[in-house]
Amino acid sequence: MREAFHDELAALSNQLAEMCGLVVSAMQRANQALLDSDLPLAEQVIADQEHIAVYGRRIEESAFRLLVLQQPVASELRTVVGSMHIAADLDRMGALAVHVADISRLRHPDCALPDEVRASFSEMGAQAVRLARTAQEVLVSRDPDVAARLRDEDDAVDAEHRHLFTLLLDRRWDDGVCSAVDVALLGRYYERFADHAVEIGNRVIFEATGGRPQHKKLA
Amino acid sequence: MREAFHDELAALSNQLAEMCGLVVSAMQRANQALLDSDLPLAEQVIADQEHIAVYGRRIEESAFRLLVLQQPVASELRTVVGSMHIAADLDRMGALAVHVADISRLRHPDCALPDEVRASFSEMGAQAVRLARTAQEVLVSRDPDVAARLRDEDDAVDAEHRHLFTLLLDRRWDDGVCSAVDVALLGRYYERFADHAVEIGNRVIFEATGGRPQHKKLA
Repeated sequence: MREAFHDELAALSNQLAEMCGLVVSAMQRANQALLDSDLPLAEQVIADQEHIAVYGRRIEESAFRLLVLQQPVASELRTVVGSMHIAADLDRMGALAVHVADISRLRHPDCALPDEVRASFSEMGAQAVRLARTAQEVLVSRDPDVAARLRDEDDAVDAEHRHLFTLLLDRRWDDGVCSAVDVALLGRYYERFADHAVEIGNRVIFEATGGRPQHKKLA
Repeated sequence: MREAFHDELAALSNQLAEMCGLVVSAMQRANQALLDSDLPLAEQVIADQEHIAVYGRRIEESAFRLLVLQQPVASELRTVVGSMHIAADLDRMGALAVHVADISRLRHPDCALPDEVRASFSEMGAQAVRLARTAQEVLVSRDPDVAARLRDEDDAVDAEHRHLFTLLLDRRWDDGVCSAVDVALLGRYYERFADHAVEIGNRVIFEATGGRPQHKKLA
């Protein structure tokens, strides 16, 4: 019985890591589609969202079944409950990658990004993908020290996001209102994507230690 | 033992409804502060966020304790697990109200809203508060029919949000880029606030019926 339980717990953990892998790939492609105005790539990200959502629902069902059948306690209970929250974070990260893809599809064949913010989005995209990869590593290793690294990585996203707003609110911005609105919303999507990765790290720290990390104020 | 359990479950439900009441009030004041450029009111909303966050953490702890001590099954387990998700939604709604307050504080003594979108935000604010009130009602009654109403109420927010974007992207917009960025982000905050209220309704429907409502694609 206990062995079967541990197998199921390991399977749950694997499912989360796989779901996170899909999210990494979604953000990577969404960012590329945005930078290159690549319509087929953007459409692929949008079409693949359902796949991520299905994973999320399956993980929630598996976790629920584990609660019913195994009635775990202590750290194992924290892991099962935490899986549900992590699946919800991953689901949102997938949705945010789709929002990025949506904007690049909407503006195609033009590029949603004016030249002066391209470098900024190239950087934020790379940072977001890095955060999602670290989250995936954390979901496999359950290492609270690596999980804590996510907060530093998020600081870099926040710094780039602030830089983006200085470009946007500069009086010399001459790309018009529509473009400014796109850039502001896109910036928000990357920032939230990173925040969810940090939340995943916080969950893993909570599971490992039973204590909440010092809560960084989330945007 | 079972009686104590039901008392604790009822207490959990009450805590959620109270937390939702704080969220109603936060959004109501944030919206008023935005419309009136009322700095003290905006600052009150920001200061009160911690109160909402504390509720969220307490609810999660109570739910966790219930899982450990009572090992509920079936619909009771769904209720306890659902409480954790609902608390997370309410926490986000509180954070979104704070984002609205942040923007009105940042622009004070000016108003963040140009005249042509005032009516739109007055409407979206009223709708958002209505959704949060309905969510509170649902948390007390656990009535899946009322919960389903949240999706119709959300449709009204989405319609107003689309209308806002037509105003924003109209070529005659002459309030500048900074203002357009504020309005775009504010619109997003109201829309997400409403989405979370719908998610609360979905959870209650799931608890009552064991089945997921047809998922509305969330933004």
